[in-house]
Amino acid sequence: MDKINLMNDYNSTCHPTVLEAIKNVSERRYVGYGADEATAVAVEMIRQMTGLPDAYVQLMPGGTITNLTAISAFLRPHEAVVAPSIGHIYVHETGAIEATGHKVLTIQAKNGKAQAADVLTIADSHTDEHMVKPKLLYISQTTELGTVYTKAELKLLRNICDEFGMYLYIDGARLGYAVSSKNSDLSIKEIASMADAFYIGGTKNGLLFGEALVICNPSLAADFRHIVKQRGALMSKGFLLGMQFQAILLGGLYFELAAQANDAAARLTEGLRNKGIPLLIETESNQVFPVVQKKTLSRLEEQVVFEVWARSTEAGTPIRFVTSWQTTDEDIESALKLF
Amino acid sequence: MDKINLMNDYNSTCHPTVLEAIKNVSERRYVGYGADEATAVAVEMIRQMTGLPDAYVQLMPGGTITNLTAISAFLRPHEAVVAPSIGHIYVHETGAIEATGHKVLTIQAKNGKAQAADVLTIADSHTDEHMVKPKLLYISQTTELGTVYTKAELKLLRNICDEFGMYLYIDGARLGYAVSSKNSDLSIKEIASMADAFYIGGTKNGLLFGEALVICNPSLAADFRHIVKQRGALMSKGFLLGMQFQAILLGGLYFELAAQANDAAARLTEGLRNKGIPLLIETESNQVFPVVQKKTLSRLEEQVVFEVWARSTEAGTPIRFVTSWQTTDEDIESALKLF
Amino acid sequence: MDKINLMNDYNSTCHPTVLEAIKNVSERRYVGYGADEATAVAVEMIRQMTGLPDAYVQLMPGGTITNLTAISAFLRPHEAVVAPSIGHIYVHETGAIEATGHKVLTIQAKNGKAQAADVLTIADSHTDEHMVKPKLLYISQTTELGTVYTKAELKLLRNICDEFGMYLYIDGARLGYAVSSKNSDLSIKEIASMADAFYIGGTKNGLLFGEALVICNPSLAADFRHIVKQRGALMSKGFLLGMQFQAILLGGLYFELAAQANDAAARLTEGLRNKGIPLLIETESNQVFPVVQKKTLSRLEEQVVFEVWARSTEAGTPIRFVTSWQTTDEDIESALKLF
Amino acid sequence: MDKINLMNDYNSTCHPTVLEAIKNVSERRYVGYGADEATAVAVEMIRQMTGLPDAYVQLMPGGTITNLTAISAFLRPHEAVVAPSIGHIYVHETGAIEATGHKVLTIQAKNGKAQAADVLTIADSHTDEHMVKPKLLYISQTTELGTVYTKAELKLLRNICDEFGMYLYIDGARLGYAVSSKNSDLSIKEIASMADAFYIGGTKNGLLFGEALVICNPSLAADFRHIVKQRGALMSKGFLLGMQFQAILLGGLYFELAAQANDAAARLTEGLRNKGIPLLIETESNQVFPVVQKKTLSRLEEQVVFEVWARSTEAGTPIRFVTSWQTTDEDIESALKLF
Repeated sequence: MDKINLMNDYNSTCHPTVLEAIKNVSERRYVGYGADEATAVAVEMIRQMTGLPDAYVQLMPGGTITNLTAISAFLRPHEAVVAPSIGHIYVHETGAIEATGHKVLTIQAKNGKAQAADVLTIADSHTDEHMVKPKLLYISQTTELGTVYTKAELKLLRNICDEFGMYLYIDGARLGYAVSSKNSDLSIKEIASMADAFYIGGTKNGLLFGEALVICNPSLAADFRHIVKQRGALMSKGFLLGMQFQAILLGGLYFELAAQANDAAARLTEGLRNKGIPLLIETESNQVFPVVQKKTLSRLEEQVVFEVWARSTEAGTPIRFVTSWQTTDEDIESALKLF
Repeated sequence: MDKINLMNDYNSTCHPTVLEAIKNVSERRYVGYGADEATAVAVEMIRQMTGLPDAYVQLMPGGTITNLTAISAFLRPHEAVVAPSIGHIYVHETGAIEATGHKVLTIQAKNGKAQAADVLTIADSHTDEHMVKPKLLYISQTTELGTVYTKAELKLLRNICDEFGMYLYIDGARLGYAVSSKNSDLSIKEIASMADAFYIGGTKNGLLFGEALVICNPSLAADFRHIVKQRGALMSKGFLLGMQFQAILLGGLYFELAAQANDAAARLTEGLRNKGIPLLIETESNQVFPVVQKKTLSRLEEQVVFEVWARSTEAGTPIRFVTSWQTTDEDIESALKLF
Repeated sequence: MDKINLMNDYNSTCHPTVLEAIKNVSERRYVGYGADEATAVAVEMIRQMTGLPDAYVQLMPGGTITNLTAISAFLRPHEAVVAPSIGHIYVHETGAIEATGHKVLTIQAKNGKAQAADVLTIADSHTDEHMVKPKLLYISQTTELGTVYTKAELKLLRNICDEFGMYLYIDGARLGYAVSSKNSDLSIKEIASMADAFYIGGTKNGLLFGEALVICNPSLAADFRHIVKQRGALMSKGFLLGMQFQAILLGGLYFELAAQANDAAARLTEGLRNKGIPLLIETESNQVFPVVQKKTLSRLEEQVVFEVWARSTEAGTPIRFVTSWQTTDEDIESALKLF
Repeated sequence: MDKINLMNDYNSTCHPTVLEAIKNVSERRYVGYGADEATAVAVEMIRQMTGLPDAYVQLMPGGTITNLTAISAFLRPHEAVVAPSIGHIYVHETGAIEATGHKVLTIQAKNGKAQAADVLTIADSHTDEHMVKPKLLYISQTTELGTVYTKAELKLLRNICDEFGMYLYIDGARLGYAVSSKNSDLSIKEIASMADAFYIGGTKNGLLFGEALVICNPSLAADFRHIVKQRGALMSKGFLLGMQFQAILLGGLYFELAAQANDAAARLTEGLRNKGIPLLIETESNQVFPVVQKKTLSRLEEQVVFEVWARSTEAGTPIRFVTSWQTTDEDIESALKLF
């Protein structure tokens, strides 16, 4: 029997609707490089969904390349990124931003989130030409710990960015989970209205692959396709991205799948709480971080696929469970039985 | 009625076998980032097929990002690429190589091919530290004009590279068409034995997307996955590449599809010759370059999708037809009727 | 006895006036990084001399680093440089521009000069996002062959640049020789009025080292000091540059020295012509390119220090003589006796 | 009357011996780009002084460009630098290292120094291809706080580097002060024997400008001049560096000047101690960091040029005094009178 898979939200091909959409058009021929109609329709859907009829939308093949392409397009050589110390671009993208020439400055993360006060301090202390110029604040929604910025928090960050002439960039690899989170008071339109650019992650929510980068600030969109091509991110079969986003956005499927995963995570969290298992951090979306004892850990390792999140301490070992649209009630129940 | 599509070889989703392979495993869960079994099997198939049991094989999402990732991994800052003036990396990748810091020096192309004598001259004339050091010869097989290097030509280039301590890198976006070409006396094993690295193009021959980079020279493979990740080319759902390559390579389907396209191009060429239509260059694979008169051009534009290749001259307008596994006998016949 | 040195114009320390200026202030203390008064005065002298009271002037330690700092500050990642094929940045700076991420496209050079028609052709043919965007025209005044752009030629290039939204950048390593050339109808103010940026070379005309970069287009000057520091070009003892430029510009010494060198080159040219020695190119400034026979070459090699410019042909071997403020009448006479 | 200048050690032209050396050869002509005899002699002196007869020595124009040229030459794209959080390259070089594509990871600094345990932790935690690979440890001797690594400390760092295959690079902008420090038990030969590369700073100890980069690890020296040229650091009048280093090293003048400055700092420290003025950190070389009260600060600002080091706290305001070979007994006495 297969183990229960709570490893991550990108461990299978894609939602059946997405594959069906691709199959249905297998006889058709398309213009290359995203100049096709499927892409045009998907882009229009995204503009409406985000309330930004004039936004520049670029469908991209993956998260890291979206981050590096966008950020290197937006910044001049001496301009730097500010990111929370657990930010994906700082920790887990092998220096992709630095490889394009830009320093990433870090600030503390509180519950995974950048704090406005810290952004202010770092912006304020970079005063002369011997230092880089903090120019873009990178945050993730949901954060790398599954937490969700509130409207008040995001507004505060936006204000700080405005004060220092900084861009606000939101890594939305798990944006669907954030918008569908019951802890969230932010609609996708509100997020879009506060960011200079953000992306709507598809790979981690039902697509084969693909992210939709939305450039809200028109001054950042000039010649963007040139830079997409230069970084190797302009798919010759761009229509594959168009088809997939069309299929997943139609009728709100994208948010349904995310909500379903969030629900599974909520049930898992409730079960753990009932059993008195401590959590590293409150569950706000599709990631759950129990802190487990040695024996439980062994039992889990036999029957569940998951990630050990951090080194063991006296309190136990923090592990991570990630749910997705594929997580079943049975998965949750079976997993809970092991505690 | 749809127009006849002879635009390029990447204008539809993929071969049904590929999609079937993805559909068949939609219930399965996979380890991320290419550490899965589907990828392992595909890699092993490629090692056997190329006669390089110890080669480092990396499945990649597209051609431009393969070129830039590989070349920037292989070279030190002052080392440069030598490429024919029509080389894809020189002309059509928006300076992707230069964006990683390396100069691309160009030499004349004869029938689309680099000439050993020109490589020698350029290597020989870069003598001191005021000049970049030519270190990697980039060629395409098939070339951008559909021509195919012969065994003798490739051997000569290999020898020149050895003489100057240069790497030989082969862009194989259309490698299947080259190996299946009736003009070719080079097996894939022979090509593999002469290159330091090359890639087997999938996007232009039946896959949804994907290229298999083969690093033959073990000294070039160190820490390669780090650089793949840094450039944004390490797909989280790497298993999608494994599945696709497994499906297309099984039973030699990859080469069958290419041969079929080459045959269509050969029939098209014969028909054009019979009608006295001149060609810009001899047809050796799946690209055909007729030079057409104004009236013919207008007629073609109404019923065929194709690319105008170059500006008109007195001799007429050079256009490009590209065949693929989807090109039918009827497509060829109908197209020929327009001449 | 020492050989006659006609090797280049940077083969000795500096003009006595410059060293004297440094010596005179050896007791003084200065603010670092160019924020000192000597620099402020030099900058003001340059603004007056160029007729650009609002220009941004940055004193820099050398030519290559001036080129790479300025060009990388001015361009976005996908924007490219257009340069004549003999342009110093293309040939003799070890890919310094490409190392900052930008492609250098080349056009033919006629008498060392970029032709407006070729700039138009290359700008016109880079039409889409698969190609870099030509954004900056790099020329040298004097050219690498010692020739001098005329007012009409420069105006034409300026117009082409305007038509395509390109910047005009002038490498003025030998700008003094150009302005002092009897073949020139361009004052330094006229040059300044047509360029987006240019530099006034000091290293090759009397300074220990130093170039004065003048950014005429104010939109290119934003945060420039940050980028100067990032590239390692912000001298901690910036005042050394200020002192030197002050000393050499005072009373027009800079142009006097250049004129003196041009005169020496003119006398040398006349002598060669009287002896029937052919020149590779007309002498317009301080570089002279005789084409010499084998015997003469041997004789010269014994008594003169100079550079062999190109490979021998049937017509003989092209060599290069460079004069400077240190070249004496006796040097010229003695050299001529060897022909 | 001029203020007492305790601002830094690079606020005047140079030591008279250096200027004299330049003046003495003003009639001579030199080969360019450091291929001259003055440079050859200086290089040989440095090899002997460091006990490394086979070291590759490159004379460079300044500190930042030495750091960025060396580090970018030594590392592959995914390899990163580890530096103390106060490291000059991390804080005060405008992201110069990142601009060459490499991440700089930081560790805590204790008394300005990197701790072996922290290097171990960071090296140990960068385990896979999603993270950069720590490959070079950057430290400064003296540190940015004027402290000096002991033999035991340096040996420990060397061992950790060996364990993780890391290079040890020492920024020696103030190496003279370190070697001449009474707190130091490390000779320059011992430092040289433990580093992979380091530089001997001239700009901050008597030269007009110039640093001598010593590459001890021969595998790091390949084609180094190419990269020096590419970064714009190969001075055409390289002989100026050769002359200066020859003059300052002759008879140990370099170390004499440093010792003299250290003595002045020691006397200043003693005076402050006698007056009960607290120091931010123990004085070990030519930098002194008193923590002063508001009234004293005002008095000092009127009569002394110095740097305010950090924000005021309840304990007072930390300021920095830097001595140099030009600091007189009178400077020290007058400054002390203000406390």
